[in-house]
Amino acid sequence: MIENEDSVWDGTASLVEIRRNIHAHPEAGWKEFRTTALVATELGRLGFTLHLGDEALAVEERLGVPDDDEIAAARARACNEGAPEEVLEKMGNSTGLVAERTYGDGTGPVVGIRVDMDALEIVEARDDSHAPMRDGFVSRHSTEMHACGHDGHTAIGIGIARKIGESAFDGTLKLFFQPAEEGGRGAIPTSKSGHVDDVDYFAALHLGLGNETGTVIAGYDRPLCNCKFLVRFTGQSAHAGNAPQEGSNALQAATTAIQNLYAIPRHSDGASRVNVGKVSSPNGQNVISDHAELIIEVRGKTTDINEYMMEKSRHIVAHSAAMHDVEYDIETYGKTTTFEADDEMITAVSDSAATVEGVTNVSKRERFGASEDASFLIQRVQDHGGKATYIGIGSDHPSGHHTPSFDIDETSLRIAVDVLLKTIATVDSR
Amino acid sequence: MIENEDSVWDGTASLVEIRRNIHAHPEAGWKEFRTTALVATELGRLGFTLHLGDEALAVEERLGVPDDDEIAAARARACNEGAPEEVLEKMGNSTGLVAERTYGDGTGPVVGIRVDMDALEIVEARDDSHAPMRDGFVSRHSTEMHACGHDGHTAIGIGIARKIGESAFDGTLKLFFQPAEEGGRGAIPTSKSGHVDDVDYFAALHLGLGNETGTVIAGYDRPLCNCKFLVRFTGQSAHAGNAPQEGSNALQAATTAIQNLYAIPRHSDGASRVNVGKVSSPNGQNVISDHAELIIEVRGKTTDINEYMMEKSRHIVAHSAAMHDVEYDIETYGKTTTFEADDEMITAVSDSAATVEGVTNVSKRERFGASEDASFLIQRVQDHGGKATYIGIGSDHPSGHHTPSFDIDETSLRIAVDVLLKTIATVDSR
Amino acid sequence: MIENEDSVWDGTASLVEIRRNIHAHPEAGWKEFRTTALVATELGRLGFTLHLGDEALAVEERLGVPDDDEIAAARARACNEGAPEEVLEKMGNSTGLVAERTYGDGTGPVVGIRVDMDALEIVEARDDSHAPMRDGFVSRHSTEMHACGHDGHTAIGIGIARKIGESAFDGTLKLFFQPAEEGGRGAIPTSKSGHVDDVDYFAALHLGLGNETGTVIAGYDRPLCNCKFLVRFTGQSAHAGNAPQEGSNALQAATTAIQNLYAIPRHSDGASRVNVGKVSSPNGQNVISDHAELIIEVRGKTTDINEYMMEKSRHIVAHSAAMHDVEYDIETYGKTTTFEADDEMITAVSDSAATVEGVTNVSKRERFGASEDASFLIQRVQDHGGKATYIGIGSDHPSGHHTPSFDIDETSLRIAVDVLLKTIATVDSR
Amino acid sequence: MIENEDSVWDGTASLVEIRRNIHAHPEAGWKEFRTTALVATELGRLGFTLHLGDEALAVEERLGVPDDDEIAAARARACNEGAPEEVLEKMGNSTGLVAERTYGDGTGPVVGIRVDMDALEIVEARDDSHAPMRDGFVSRHSTEMHACGHDGHTAIGIGIARKIGESAFDGTLKLFFQPAEEGGRGAIPTSKSGHVDDVDYFAALHLGLGNETGTVIAGYDRPLCNCKFLVRFTGQSAHAGNAPQEGSNALQAATTAIQNLYAIPRHSDGASRVNVGKVSSPNGQNVISDHAELIIEVRGKTTDINEYMMEKSRHIVAHSAAMHDVEYDIETYGKTTTFEADDEMITAVSDSAATVEGVTNVSKRERFGASEDASFLIQRVQDHGGKATYIGIGSDHPSGHHTPSFDIDETSLRIAVDVLLKTIATVDSR
Repeated sequence: MIENEDSVWDGTASLVEIRRNIHAHPEAGWKEFRTTALVATELGRLGFTLHLGDEALAVEERLGVPDDDEIAAARARACNEGAPEEVLEKMGNSTGLVAERTYGDGTGPVVGIRVDMDALEIVEARDDSHAPMRDGFVSRHSTEMHACGHDGHTAIGIGIARKIGESAFDGTLKLFFQPAEEGGRGAIPTSKSGHVDDVDYFAALHLGLGNETGTVIAGYDRPLCNCKFLVRFTGQSAHAGNAPQEGSNALQAATTAIQNLYAIPRHSDGASRVNVGKVSSPNGQNVISDHAELIIEVRGKTTDINEYMMEKSRHIVAHSAAMHDVEYDIETYGKTTTFEADDEMITAVSDSAATVEGVTNVSKRERFGASEDASFLIQRVQDHGGKATYIGIGSDHPSGHHTPSFDIDETSLRIAVDVLLKTIATVDSR
Repeated sequence: MIENEDSVWDGTASLVEIRRNIHAHPEAGWKEFRTTALVATELGRLGFTLHLGDEALAVEERLGVPDDDEIAAARARACNEGAPEEVLEKMGNSTGLVAERTYGDGTGPVVGIRVDMDALEIVEARDDSHAPMRDGFVSRHSTEMHACGHDGHTAIGIGIARKIGESAFDGTLKLFFQPAEEGGRGAIPTSKSGHVDDVDYFAALHLGLGNETGTVIAGYDRPLCNCKFLVRFTGQSAHAGNAPQEGSNALQAATTAIQNLYAIPRHSDGASRVNVGKVSSPNGQNVISDHAELIIEVRGKTTDINEYMMEKSRHIVAHSAAMHDVEYDIETYGKTTTFEADDEMITAVSDSAATVEGVTNVSKRERFGASEDASFLIQRVQDHGGKATYIGIGSDHPSGHHTPSFDIDETSLRIAVDVLLKTIATVDSR
Repeated sequence: MIENEDSVWDGTASLVEIRRNIHAHPEAGWKEFRTTALVATELGRLGFTLHLGDEALAVEERLGVPDDDEIAAARARACNEGAPEEVLEKMGNSTGLVAERTYGDGTGPVVGIRVDMDALEIVEARDDSHAPMRDGFVSRHSTEMHACGHDGHTAIGIGIARKIGESAFDGTLKLFFQPAEEGGRGAIPTSKSGHVDDVDYFAALHLGLGNETGTVIAGYDRPLCNCKFLVRFTGQSAHAGNAPQEGSNALQAATTAIQNLYAIPRHSDGASRVNVGKVSSPNGQNVISDHAELIIEVRGKTTDINEYMMEKSRHIVAHSAAMHDVEYDIETYGKTTTFEADDEMITAVSDSAATVEGVTNVSKRERFGASEDASFLIQRVQDHGGKATYIGIGSDHPSGHHTPSFDIDETSLRIAVDVLLKTIATVDSR
Repeated sequence: MIENEDSVWDGTASLVEIRRNIHAHPEAGWKEFRTTALVATELGRLGFTLHLGDEALAVEERLGVPDDDEIAAARARACNEGAPEEVLEKMGNSTGLVAERTYGDGTGPVVGIRVDMDALEIVEARDDSHAPMRDGFVSRHSTEMHACGHDGHTAIGIGIARKIGESAFDGTLKLFFQPAEEGGRGAIPTSKSGHVDDVDYFAALHLGLGNETGTVIAGYDRPLCNCKFLVRFTGQSAHAGNAPQEGSNALQAATTAIQNLYAIPRHSDGASRVNVGKVSSPNGQNVISDHAELIIEVRGKTTDINEYMMEKSRHIVAHSAAMHDVEYDIETYGKTTTFEADDEMITAVSDSAATVEGVTNVSKRERFGASEDASFLIQRVQDHGGKATYIGIGSDHPSGHHTPSFDIDETSLRIAVDVLLKTIATVDSR
């Protein structure tokens, strides 16, 4: 067991210990310095070649990166919490790791596995009915929490790395420890890193998702594409009593935009969505609004529909601003696309899963309800001729994803590792 | 009495007979061919120099002119109803008359009087409680009616022309028989005709306006400025069930415009108004609207405020259209401005009115509630150094202006002529 | 050939002659007095039992019925154009016919066929490139036209009635000559007539729909449900310049409603639609609007989604009105639902069609893009244990449905009759 | 000079020292515990009868009172900063002081003077070009600042109290040290305290307002009435991608409200205003908004127009909420009315001011551009037969009211005291 609060794990730690150590030190998107560094250390020990920071991803393609101060603070915290300095140095200011190693005669396929490492900005439950609290690995960070199982995903990635050498695998394994999955921010730069382009077989995976321990979904696919963006309207304030006509009302621009955004015509080729989340216009009641900020999300069944929603949105924002003589800017901070899992991968996963101890129920293909940025990796693999899927690994969870008392059933870690190892063996043997 | 339906009057007709003849043949704005022609004939007989059609006004400045077919039909109707062809020929396609004559030694001032001649597009009442029906001079035109007293105004103009020679007036009288006052369409071209520029004393007048017979308002002024315009949005239709995304929705553009028009910031320098009257978007329920038409009016206490409202409106319309990928055009079809009556004229009118038989009550200055395009003539006169006012002549009217059973008390015709003649004498003697 | 303009057909007329006679005398929804009467006469001659007017449908359930004057005028016109008075009398004020006859020993199934009879309010093309013009059977009615092939449908119904007796059919044939299909107005009252409830096998059919002659779609299904309604907002007018605050602005209510209608949240269970078609607010530019009228259509993939859209719409209309102190009323004038065709019927139709001369291409099941009120009849049949389908019969058409130069390929009439007769034989033999 | 940061002043301090001490310890509305306590101490020393807390005002009529925790914190801070505990005890939880004293034989009039004590929530400038920084009396409170001159007003009140005894005044002086003028929150409870009802002559005053030192405005009046209110919409969140139809969108309610608020018809009886200041809807981009908060201000030339604006607003908010199945509540947190200054007071002030050293320019009556809650006190005085005015005392100010570098010219303190003392003498001598 890990006792000291900020102790790190070593090569002898179990997957459960590792998962708990990560759980106790959650790091939100683009702040995964400690996680990346410790994983890199472990995989270095295992003989993997490591690509860190700007070698792991196309850093200029990153979306939704916090400002420099936040990044610096996260890096400093990681250092305080045991992340080896020399690894941090290699990472620079960007988190993320691609680890690869070739086995046997190297004539087998290149297999890629994506696991995501980022936590959420949620305050974790602190009552004793919550296992991480009871068992001492609740979040040490007041406003961050692993409430989506990425701590488990990271541990699974390590589990695969540890055991792949024991198998007859003759190809190259590439493990993508991806930052900033939440919000759809980390996959695009990872997909453009070059590391994905020669992958023959690719899988991303997710624990839970409403499936109980023992269930495996071999091919989750067809999520809605989405795009998240921030709009800032900047007008001209004026005294609302003395000279309202002298203002340029940012709030009227925002209001016109919101009403027209919700009214974007439905698309007859498939589902579309639009939502305005946060709206903030912080003026006094006697001041014509000079600033309004909106965060917006559109979705579409296809990239075309998503692009249609985005184009309409841009148009509406631009002319709502111009109508009220208001400036604006739009900043995209997250994006996902859609994909279809390949039959060959689905068959490989479902055949493999059926033989894994503890697997009680295998489903071949299901529609993925939420959005996922692994979609960009899968598209890239498929564009280069590879085969891909997105695997659901059941894990009993006491409460919903993204809630303060989320937790996973740790027995699913071993199941996931086994399903993946067998799948690798299956595709290798073709 | 005039017996035959479409008989015309001659030099022996009384003012009441003339007013009734005109009442029976109402002609809406820019269609006053018969009225203009008969008035011109009468004033020609009286020795006035006549300026007709494009000699009476700057025709290219006309607003809200009906299309060529309508004009041609109105002209043909006038011909059928007794308008002398040679006068019609001189008028060309534009109605309107300026008649002038110099009296005595010509050393006196130039005095201008504006009377308007156009009728409204209203269906006149046809029950016997309505005097024009009872007495046989109800409108012969099914959808036009003199419901604002302009028939009386025209007769008053003739009355002044007939009697001015009997006075000691030593100056020049210019009578402006103006077309298309309703909607604010005829005064701008009249004001730019050149005929107004040398006027020393100017008066426009109106019967009724809620004042009973015997009341005279020497200086009605400070109306709100206004501007009337038509907006046409032209989009792209599409099947609302099968492909709503393929349309460019003119109605959404119109709706966005309407909401933002009503929300134009109030102006702190004085009253402003905005209204959308007619909206028409004639599509089927399953068709994305490809056409929407609006008529809009803005007003302002000053020309600056009016211009502010107009500028904002243009901006809103333009960007509502662009937001929805819709074309638009804006057509101004009416305009008025504001003015302040000159004290010198107010004094002249009120002093004169006090001596006229039948005048029981004289008010010096009152705010004019509605809009009036005589405002452009008054501004022009004042800009060139002349003095001007707008006179209210009380006339009992059984129902409101612009209603089907509107009528005037014909005894007010004589009062008006006398007030004006005495006013001319007063200003001449200065 | 039919020579005299308003001659009627008799038992010797060919299907093409009948179709052309009907084409020349198009009657819009609820005005099909001549069509109903002549069809009834023909089917009476053939020995069918006739149910007319309120015996054919639940008249109180009719939607979108024109006012009494319009109905009376349509009835009088039918009389002038040769509709037998005694049949008109039986019909009363409602069009529509259900004709039934039992064949053989009557032990076979009850088979129902729905054909619709109404025309559209479209002005038919009158140039010689349009066959009905060239060949002398263009619409005699200036603003009505058979632009959706219902003239052909009616002729097909007669064709089936004429030839069924030649087959070995041992059951009961019910022919539903339905009024007012356009707008989704006639099927609900027909479905509640009682005549549908014992039908074992049911088919409705449509010519054209983009399919060329020779193509048969055995099972068109899954149309969007829809609901069409008219909203009237009644406010209080006021002078927009003098007292805008005294009005209750019907146009502001309408505008608020329109913006919120288009913004009804998309439904995650399937496609939804909303559209505002006609908007009419006929006020002057200086009058606060006291009246605004909208026609609206919502659609949904399921009846639940359609109902959701309708409920939201009602709510929005009600509170848009209340917000502006405006009265409102909502009148539903058309409605359709959705359905799934039964495999048994699809097989019967596709097997039958394959054997019909001239059929070159058979498709089993396709999604029906538009809305169809036959959906109510199909649901009723299925609710009572019967099997149903909606059949597409290809027919070259030179221009789109609902356009002025629409026409059908008359060879498809015979194909349709044969496909239906063989289908009846097929289901009878089970 | 005051040296220690939180030292308090005593009877020997000059007005400038007192003003600077108050400036250094600004207290926002309803938090003026230190200010009230120190003023009370000073006036107690001068022999005034003191009414504190619920004896000074009708506490249940207070608007916009911060929550209990904030009040308690403000009280504790005052205690730390030298406010005498026994005075704080008398005040309870409400700030505010009415101090009165009768002079001479007491046969003279009751004279009331209102000075306000509250600061603003503004961060004061801290560069050396800002005199309070340079001279060491910049705000000790990070987010509060005297940016509207109330520190000076309070000092002026003390100045009058100190010197009135030296004059021949024979009546009763009531000094109203009012809390929470900003936002229009403190005058209503003060006006209903009973202390105003027997006032014969009343004056409120303000420094600056764009007038340079030496200018006196004897009668500022006719401000717009206003009303400030907070609206909270509470809906139902839902996942915007998975089930948008399950939400009740508070933001759509807010948006509909905002657009319709700005579009409230202009009132023809005089100026009206409406503004939405802060809008806050803090949801994630993928969450249907369950909460939106708005602060709103309406104004009107008269109380009727203000009430009209308020009524319309309520109506719009209620139905915007209902339209989207959203709950709402409205909380009024500030209110002012209008008034006309009495000629008698204007004459008294202008005659007196003309004799004061340093006064270079006296204006009799000017329209007050902003809103003022002294309006409620003035109305109350006038309703009870007293005479009242609102006096402007010029004071050079380097930057605008309510800005971080606002300051006053301290020589205006003495001028103000002298103008008021002479005015009291003038009304006493009548």
